[in-house]
Amino acid sequence: MLKGAWVARIITLFPDAFPGTLGLSLTGKALEMGRWRLEALDLRTFGLGKHRNVDDTPAGGGAGMVLRADVVDAALKVAADGTPKDRARWPVIYLSPRGKPFTQAMARDWAAAEGITLLCGRFEGVDQRVLDHWQIEEVSLGDFVLTGGEIAAQAMLDATVRLIPGVLGNAESIEEESHSHGLLEHPQYTRPQEWEGREIPAVLTSGDHGKIAGWRRAEAEKLTEARRPDMWAKRQG
Amino acid sequence: MLKGAWVARIITLFPDAFPGTLGLSLTGKALEMGRWRLEALDLRTFGLGKHRNVDDTPAGGGAGMVLRADVVDAALKVAADGTPKDRARWPVIYLSPRGKPFTQAMARDWAAAEGITLLCGRFEGVDQRVLDHWQIEEVSLGDFVLTGGEIAAQAMLDATVRLIPGVLGNAESIEEESHSHGLLEHPQYTRPQEWEGREIPAVLTSGDHGKIAGWRRAEAEKLTEARRPDMWAKRQG
Repeated sequence: MLKGAWVARIITLFPDAFPGTLGLSLTGKALEMGRWRLEALDLRTFGLGKHRNVDDTPAGGGAGMVLRADVVDAALKVAADGTPKDRARWPVIYLSPRGKPFTQAMARDWAAAEGITLLCGRFEGVDQRVLDHWQIEEVSLGDFVLTGGEIAAQAMLDATVRLIPGVLGNAESIEEESHSHGLLEHPQYTRPQEWEGREIPAVLTSGDHGKIAGWRRAEAEKLTEARRPDMWAKRQG
Repeated sequence: MLKGAWVARIITLFPDAFPGTLGLSLTGKALEMGRWRLEALDLRTFGLGKHRNVDDTPAGGGAGMVLRADVVDAALKVAADGTPKDRARWPVIYLSPRGKPFTQAMARDWAAAEGITLLCGRFEGVDQRVLDHWQIEEVSLGDFVLTGGEIAAQAMLDATVRLIPGVLGNAESIEEESHSHGLLEHPQYTRPQEWEGREIPAVLTSGDHGKIAGWRRAEAEKLTEARRPDMWAKRQG
């Protein structure tokens, strides 16, 4: 059953962070059912000396600490065990604010792979040589600074795992499709019909499916233009 | 001690997701020390009837389920207890892919507030009327679809809490500053001097601080231009 399941290998100083929120809800159910596997590798066990040191001060000075190339290399070797060398089949990613921004298209590519290795950073970063040596791709969750890569890894895995075949029900896969159109979602309403003097827009209870679709499309366009001029411009492109 | 600490109030169907990874590392230490507080409100307890229903089918049809306005309203009322009405002092946020993208500037604003209320979505969304009624701001972690708002909330809280005075040491606050320049970080190196035939760039061990700063700046610019043409274009104005 587990053989052939999609695998996430995570190199981290905080293995206890996993599965974390990924162990709940839909991703947690899929984990229990063996639709994917999560293997957290404790970077500390690859550390040097009695104190299992993993980092050292930056060459050229400056604040913080840098993860050592040799230590990270040892962990990457273990994580690579039994994985395909083709990075399309098994991406090897370093989570870093210097990376390319994570997108839904990336989640789709990763879900179509056999698994992924995610290196979680801490401190000032990782010695550049180990990133070069392994030709690691750097990916960023967004333009903000996190204390480490662990939460970023969880966000990316959540977005990816829900796209693995058999994880989502049909209903939710439709939602995914709608996001692919390059428009923000239209507003949603549900019972009660009236709440605090506010009614559900009449068109939605008209039973006219053509009109409903038209209204939703217009609302989605209006919202996208107002909130995400960047996304809107790309559509008009 | 706790009085006056920065507070995160989270409305969620998965209160067990918190503090999660926020309970580890720097944010976890700050939580233990009372520099901030985390209060997870279980949305289920505000549900209706014997089964504590929180959602219903979308008006006008379509897949998935929508969180009810009356249920979310009840939770928001409890979350608002004792908080300032001024949203600059206490933002009220709905985590949704329809929102404005989360940025470091937002993290800075939130850290300067007294606390924050975060509403985590699930299913197809939340009845629009309760968002309008409460004038809730929608914020998105990025252009990807998550199974729910919980991991997004953790990412945003991580970015925010580390900016609360007293949470970061001096070393790490410098790192934050460097991200504010609108450039990606320069590469980092540390011992050993040679690894797998790769040397630390000579300039970094030259002891010439001016040259080191110049090299780092040039590398940061080169990297930003190559990886983030959008960021680079903004700098060039």
